[in-house]
Amino acid sequence: MMNSPPNTVLVTGSNRGLGLEFVRQLASLPVSPSCIIATCRKPDNAVALKKIASKYPSVHILKLDVTDRENIRSVTEKVGHILEGQGLNLLLNNAGVGPGGDLYDVTEDIMMHTFKTNVVAPLLVTQAFLPLLKSAAKTADCIGLSWRKSAVVNISSRLASIETNEDYLLGRYPYKTSKAALNMVSKNLGVDLREDGILAVSLSPGSVRTDMGVPTAPLLPHQSVEMMLQVISGLNEDDSGSFLNFTGELIPW
Amino acid sequence: MMNSPPNTVLVTGSNRGLGLEFVRQLASLPVSPSCIIATCRKPDNAVALKKIASKYPSVHILKLDVTDRENIRSVTEKVGHILEGQGLNLLLNNAGVGPGGDLYDVTEDIMMHTFKTNVVAPLLVTQAFLPLLKSAAKTADCIGLSWRKSAVVNISSRLASIETNEDYLLGRYPYKTSKAALNMVSKNLGVDLREDGILAVSLSPGSVRTDMGVPTAPLLPHQSVEMMLQVISGLNEDDSGSFLNFTGELIPW
Repeated sequence: MMNSPPNTVLVTGSNRGLGLEFVRQLASLPVSPSCIIATCRKPDNAVALKKIASKYPSVHILKLDVTDRENIRSVTEKVGHILEGQGLNLLLNNAGVGPGGDLYDVTEDIMMHTFKTNVVAPLLVTQAFLPLLKSAAKTADCIGLSWRKSAVVNISSRLASIETNEDYLLGRYPYKTSKAALNMVSKNLGVDLREDGILAVSLSPGSVRTDMGVPTAPLLPHQSVEMMLQVISGLNEDDSGSFLNFTGELIPW
Repeated sequence: MMNSPPNTVLVTGSNRGLGLEFVRQLASLPVSPSCIIATCRKPDNAVALKKIASKYPSVHILKLDVTDRENIRSVTEKVGHILEGQGLNLLLNNAGVGPGGDLYDVTEDIMMHTFKTNVVAPLLVTQAFLPLLKSAAKTADCIGLSWRKSAVVNISSRLASIETNEDYLLGRYPYKTSKAALNMVSKNLGVDLREDGILAVSLSPGSVRTDMGVPTAPLLPHQSVEMMLQVISGLNEDDSGSFLNFTGELIPW
């Protein structure tokens, strides 16, 4: 049974895959958030997302290219207006890219693009939403840290684990280095934001059958997101700054 | 007592600090490498390095900006000529930057520049020198992995440890994320290159009194490098893909 959900949520990369599924499941909870900001790069093409928004008035679609600083700034303003003085309880940094690139064919361009999207973007999006996250934490009527108060969830990957790296797909330098760096962001955020009442974690969705994942992956998006929402709903101050699997278990850094 | 040194070595960022000290100590070993390629961005200004090179004919200075792909390519050729058919036994990826940047003032530009210099550069330099590293590993007359055979040493930082991050300086997002990502590179290289007879590690120099470090740091460059060379000289196949302190102890990822 899931703890009562946050009042306001923002999801990046919500046009497809896990992001879309996060919006769908959050919107259809028996007790659901009053406001779900679903962002993506190209809302015009986000057919499935628009269908969800037409069914659930809590869902607001906004255009956000997370690698575009100016766009981040303008979206922060728009979200402020939509939330009408409420803070942001849950920021789901889900947008990301998953390119290949082994030792022999990896290039500077693909390394830089991946780092920008998977590390710099979630950091700058979090930075931009700090006032709204802090405001939510301050006004929430609950003790300790939780998604009811204020939480930043960075969607990482099992492949981000340097410790267990050996057991997984070799190569993939851009993806693995970026997700390890993202884990450092989560740990840093966990420490930096604790006193503000905001928790931060890295969360691995498992191996999921999405466009970015493997076609033969064991998990379907709705299964992964169902389990991740269970984990997120149970997060507390002891979890902040940690790297969790979709099953709720800690993954070694 | 240090094991007999590698025959050929290349050090990046050798104009000052730890890089300069690596060149100095390697060149002045009782039994020293026959060839030490000391690279830096601006050899013309590298007064101390030039002084060492004038004393030790084994030291060859080459201009290398590790963030410049074209420069990496041209240096690889030059090194091939200097080594005259010998391979490269030890690649010391030492060049790096250490900017600040906390949650409130970190920018995209400083994140990207730091990632490029501290992660992409050592990866691409290693990629470029793979033929020479493999050649050294193939021709070395010894069993197992070692610096006598072929080794890539990435100079990381204690601050790269996500696990123990909490105990150290807060903030420093660009530096910490880049060094965590570099650690993933080292782990990946360790796995990818094992069969080629090449070992790879991340090594923390400790807190050193250099331009990039803290003025009140406990270690002087020559002390840190002395201990790091002891560690590097003792590396074997069990160490490859690991993250070691200058004391030789494992650091948690």
